[in-house]
Parts: sequence; structure tokens; C-alpha cells
Amino acid sequence: MVRLDSRDANFRQAFAALLGAKREIAEDVDEIVRGIIRDVVSGGDAALVAQTRRLDRLGDGFTAADLRVSEAEVDAAVSACPAEALDALRLAAERIETFHRAQLPSDHSATDALGVTAGWRWTALESVGLYVPGGTASYPSSVLMNAVPARVAGVPRVVMVVPTPEGQLNPLVLAAARLSGVDEIFRVGGAQAVAALAYGTETIAPVAKIVGPGNAYVAAAKRRVFGQVGIDMIAGPSEVLILADADANPDWIAADLLAQAEHDVAAQSILITDSQALADATALAVERALTTLPRAETARASWRDYGAIIVVEDLEAAIPLVDRLAPEHLEIETADPEHLAGLVRNAGAIFLGSHTPEAIGDYVGGPNHVLPTARSARFSSGLGVLDFMKRTTLLRCDPQALRALGPAAIALGRSEGLEGHARSVAIRLNL
Amino acid sequence: MVRLDSRDANFRQAFAALLGAKREIAEDVDEIVRGIIRDVVSGGDAALVAQTRRLDRLGDGFTAADLRVSEAEVDAAVSACPAEALDALRLAAERIETFHRAQLPSDHSATDALGVTAGWRWTALESVGLYVPGGTASYPSSVLMNAVPARVAGVPRVVMVVPTPEGQLNPLVLAAARLSGVDEIFRVGGAQAVAALAYGTETIAPVAKIVGPGNAYVAAAKRRVFGQVGIDMIAGPSEVLILADADANPDWIAADLLAQAEHDVAAQSILITDSQALADATALAVERALTTLPRAETARASWRDYGAIIVVEDLEAAIPLVDRLAPEHLEIETADPEHLAGLVRNAGAIFLGSHTPEAIGDYVGGPNHVLPTARSARFSSGLGVLDFMKRTTLLRCDPQALRALGPAAIALGRSEGLEGHARSVAIRLNL
Repeated sequence: MVRLDSRDANFRQAFAALLGAKREIAEDVDEIVRGIIRDVVSGGDAALVAQTRRLDRLGDGFTAADLRVSEAEVDAAVSACPAEALDALRLAAERIETFHRAQLPSDHSATDALGVTAGWRWTALESVGLYVPGGTASYPSSVLMNAVPARVAGVPRVVMVVPTPEGQLNPLVLAAARLSGVDEIFRVGGAQAVAALAYGTETIAPVAKIVGPGNAYVAAAKRRVFGQVGIDMIAGPSEVLILADADANPDWIAADLLAQAEHDVAAQSILITDSQALADATALAVERALTTLPRAETARASWRDYGAIIVVEDLEAAIPLVDRLAPEHLEIETADPEHLAGLVRNAGAIFLGSHTPEAIGDYVGGPNHVLPTARSARFSSGLGVLDFMKRTTLLRCDPQALRALGPAAIALGRSEGLEGHARSVAIRLNL
Repeated sequence: MVRLDSRDANFRQAFAALLGAKREIAEDVDEIVRGIIRDVVSGGDAALVAQTRRLDRLGDGFTAADLRVSEAEVDAAVSACPAEALDALRLAAERIETFHRAQLPSDHSATDALGVTAGWRWTALESVGLYVPGGTASYPSSVLMNAVPARVAGVPRVVMVVPTPEGQLNPLVLAAARLSGVDEIFRVGGAQAVAALAYGTETIAPVAKIVGPGNAYVAAAKRRVFGQVGIDMIAGPSEVLILADADANPDWIAADLLAQAEHDVAAQSILITDSQALADATALAVERALTTLPRAETARASWRDYGAIIVVEDLEAAIPLVDRLAPEHLEIETADPEHLAGLVRNAGAIFLGSHTPEAIGDYVGGPNHVLPTARSARFSSGLGVLDFMKRTTLLRCDPQALRALGPAAIALGRSEGLEGHARSVAIRLNL
């Protein structure tokens, strides 16, 4: 963890170093991924099954008939889930759905004085594939956060792929898929699953877009199939930035910093405060909380390598630092958090006041937890309903409107050396 | 040009071949681009000037002081433009602005029965760089189509880069920049311009997102800097698909097919009709029109290699073909074009009726002419105001709301093995 003070002479340099810290080691898996994709494209189900047997350590008994998870298996998984977790998932799904319903966009059409009708309409994507990691990173909450907006958008076919290493499959993941209306579930993962979703096999029909988190192989595969299908953002390690004043509770802040840090050794947790006392107390509170945290090893490494406590003279004056960090998650624990929030330009999601820990947003707040990382909140948004829809513009001229607009189009076409463009207008006006 | 008939035995195969036609030869320029970017990142202005001298064949007299195009130069360029073209540009800018103003999104906030306030707000990107190609592909209409939506979104800093091979700069491009409120113009192009926009030099401050068309070097550079900055889609060769019935005018349709084909030898123009007579007449009309078209060489190659005329029994039954082609531009020339348009899921832009040639949309219709190519209308939209904004979600719980939601968040955190998440909630509830 570094401690910075905005009044220090070397602050600009130290802050720039914090901003520039490379938190991800890009594994070069591109050649392997290229081979896997080629294999699935040419070999279809047979290649997919062979890759899956090998990479998920399944026996020869695993065949193409086992790719699809049956409704009966989902039923059985739901029955096996603890009631408390199922209830919590149900509450989360409802709240996520309500929030995302408000994102449904409106169509538009207007006819102007010239008689030109112009507008657009939104349509859902025809199909979406949702990648769900296997093993310990197999999070039911992520299934909801990806599948519910797709369903709200009206995507008629939502497909989920999830690897089952040694045959293991988290029943809560299946329950989340059921709750959010996933239509098809396949037990495949890795680059081979991405290839199947992009190009299709005998058993898995291709989709229009692939979303969801994954390891380096999945990320490389998504980059590689982009164009053939749409993809969502490639998520980096998680981040939280907390703005807090002297009245904030250092133990609560420490808990929030560690809730990020426990995700990944490359996660980043930063506190910016105008209180030296809070800075000192929080540093101690983090150490205290680490002593009993189950994932302390991960959290400690993250906090040690990428954590920061920055003392500033004035929180308002610190807003430019926030905009440069462009955090995935921004917590504001001050008396009037809305005031500071209103000054921020770049953040994925903002959590207002001391009773809104970021973890509420991870699960049951309603907003999406898939958010831009690695400073990309400067130019991108969290996942939402619009990511599962697309806009088609519409234009209609009647003969009179074409007479009014045509000469300008002809002039511009000719000025750009595109006589064919000009002629396609002129021929209709006998010009 | 291929002629297909949906009643032919081999139609499915022939249509699949048309769909799968690779129209782009991907030049492998990635290594060169990587070197150029590294050079600009480490060398700043000096590297940028050296690259520009060499690649745009400018003399040693070209220095960093010449990078920025002055207001006086823009004034002089505007004075040098023909009045007719300027008037047409002005009309186009006004219409594009009116159309895009309707795309400005709304913020949202709602407080539910539990006392949770959740919503989002949209903010403009802090800065945008617009790449404009030089030479013959330097289109003033593209400047408007990129810069006007950025300005409507409220982007406070819009930067344009344009190469000036042998010092040449199209005065209409500068006029379009002036009309659409571009703030800074630099005479640089290629991967070196993209690098400067992404990482900044002494003279060019970095931007948050880079948009606009370019050659293979520009496309590769945009891909490479993605993440550091946002980028728009990578545009492929242009396409038109025309749906027309027996009443359509074959000469008009031929003109529209060639208006696409004249763009690029890799452009694609397709007619789908339920009239054998129209199919035959259009094939002849294309040949006739080619004899006098200035860009006939390009248009002829595109039509020969990628053009198609498809006869179907019934236009409504052809809609699945349209959705699979997912054309950038779809013209519908039938008695009731709205009816067919309502059945289409995948298209970038639809032009309704015989008096709406696609070229109207290229210039003065109002909708954006930057549209998804290469079947990507299955999962993406044309350029719009939202591409220059981003959404930040907001969440606020009061103590009572946290008590209501907290237990579910704790349960889900524990079920995912993230005890730190659970504790950040529990500590506030004394649980």
C-alpha cells in the first residue's frame, strides 16, 4: 500500500505512477486459442467434445449428447440449493429486472416541414451467448447480471456455457440461469465454448453476441471472434475508490477496501480523504480486518501491491484525481455525497453515503455489477439493456421532400468525387 | 455479379457462399503500426513530425509548430469553398444536428418501497479525436457525421486529425470541421496520428476516444490503442441491399446499386426482387449506367465480384435472407415499404420507398451514415450521440434500506465464497 499526500512535492509523479500501474500480466495464449477455434470450426461437436474431455478432465463417457444440461438437471440443482441462497437470488433477480426495465429505450420518428420522415427503432439481438466461468469463480450473481438485461431487452434466445471441471457444476449457477430465463445451457468452457457460440456446431447454434467474464483464454477467444459476433467489454481486475471525510467509520471503510481486494491479487482499493486521522485509522483497521479474513492471502497481496491511501486538503479539489482514476466503483462517504457525485465525470458506478457498501451493488441493489475497469469509465459504461439491443435508423422522402433535399445531396456527392451518388438522386428528379 | 433464384435446388448453398464472401484482404501491418506507436509514445512531437515528414512527403521545413491548423487557415479554406457546396454542407450539418438532438438520453432515479434510491446519469466523454483520411477519401460529410453527434453529446473537446499528403488539405473538410464545432485540428494522419491522440505529445493532448474511418494502418492502430482509449467500430467496405417489387424503376435501382459499388472494389450491392422482369431489366440498366460513370472501373469490379440479383417467390418470405445479410443499408422500394421494414430485424439503416435513394442518407437525410458493415448489424448500431456519452449508475441506501437488503447480500456473498463482501455489509448492521 502506498500513502500519498497531495501537498507533497512529488505527489504528481507518485499519483501518475499509481495511475500507470500495470495490474494485469497479459498471458500470451493467442496461438493456443487460434488453434482451438480452428479445431472447433472444422470439427464441430466432435472437436468440442474432445477439447472438453481433455481440458475439463472428463472421461471418454462424455459425448455430444452430454453437452446440453437438461431441464431435469436444472430442476435437481434448484432443489439442492439452500433456501436462503435461493431466496436471496430471487430478490436479486427481481431488483435487477426492475432497474433494467427502466433502461428500455424508445423508438423515434418525426416528419419535418420538407416532408422527410426520419427516426429509429430498437430491436433486441436475435441471440446471445453468456459465458460463465467454472470452479471457484463461478458466480451466480454474474449469471443474473448478464442474463436478466438480455431477457429484459427481449432477446429471444439466451444461451449459457459453463465448464464443468471434473464434472463439477455449481447448483446456484443453474438456479440463477433458471431464474433469469436462460433458454439453453451447455457444459463447455474456455476458448472452445467461445468458438462454438461464434461459429456453431451440430449441437450449439451460433449466437449474435457473446458476453460474460472469463480467464485469459476466454478473453483472447472473444477478441479473436469479434466481428463474426459482437462481444462485451474485456473486464480487468476490480477496483474501488472511496472518498471519505473525517466523520467516516474507518472499520467500515477497511471492510469495503478489503471486499475489493479479496477478489484478486490484481484488484485495486484506494481511499482518498481530507482527514489524516481517518487515513491513519483506516490503515490500522485494514491490518486488523485482514487477520480474520478467509481470503486474506489474496486481499493482503492486492492491498500491498496496489492499495493506496491519499490525503488531500479538500475533497472537492480531489475530483480531478477521481476523474483520472475513472474508478469502476466509487464510494462517497461524506455528509453530502450527492454534491461530490455531481462533480465527478468518470466512474462506472457511484455508491452514495456510508450505508451503501459496494457489495450491495454486487448483489441486490439493482444496477449492474458488470462495470468498466482499468480507467475505461472515461469512455464506456456498465452493462445494460442497450448492450442487448441495436438501433436501426429509418428515412423516408416523398417526391416533394426529395426535390427539396436532392440538390444539396447532388452537390455534396460531386464535391466528394462520387458522381454515382449524385446520379442516384438526379435520376429521380430528371436533373 | 451472381444471379440466384430462391426456387433453385442449390439456392441455400449459393446464398451461403454470398454471405461468406471475404471482401476484405486484411493487410498485415500490425508490426509496422506497433513500431510507429512505440516511436510516438517515446519520442512525442519530434517523432510525430519525423513520421509525418516521411509518410506525407513533407519537407524538412515542417516542424511541430506546423502541426496545428490555425483559425486563419480555416477561415481561408472556408472562403475558398464554392458557395453551393458550403450551403449544402450547412444544410447537412443542421439536419444531422436536429436528428441527433433527439438521441440525447435521459437520466433516471427512483426510490423504492425499501428506501433504496437507484438510477443513472449520462455524461459526455471529456474529449474525442476524429480521424479524417487524406487524399481522395477525405470526405467532408464524414466530418459532419462524426463531429456533430460528439458536439450534440456535449463533448467539451473535439479534436480532428487529417493527413496532408504533399501538403494538400481539402478546404471542404476544414469547412465541415468549422461548421460542426471542432476545437483543434492537426495535420497528421496514419498510425502516428492515432498514437498521438491515444497517448498525447507535447502539442496534442490525449483524448478519451478515437472515432472515424481510415486505412489498414489506422484500423490496426485503433485496435492496438483500444483500452488506453475508446474506439468506434472498425468499418468495412460499404453495402446496399435493395428489396424491390415489379413496380420499381430498374434505372433508379441500377443507379443505387452503382452508388454503393463506386465506393470500393470490395463494396457489395444486392437486389432481391419477386419480379424476374425487374431482375433482368436491372441487370441491363447497370451495364448501361456503367458506360458513363466516372468511377466505372471501381464500380464494375465491385459489381462483378460481389454484386448479386436474387429472385424470390415472395418478398415477405425473403426477410430471413435480409436478416442473415444484415445489410449496412437496406432500401425497400415497394408499395408499402413500412410493412416489410417492420419485419426486418437486422439492418443498419432502412430507406423507405422509391424516392429515398441511399445517397440522401449519406449526406442530408439527418441519420448518421456511419453504420455497421460486414453483417455486424446483427449486433451493433450506427454511430450516434450515445457513442460520445457514458452512463454512471448511482445507488443509495439509507440505514433502513441496508437493513432490508443486507441479509440477502450477506447470503450471496457467503455462497460465492466472498466473506469480505459479506462482512462489509454485516459490519454496518452489527451482524
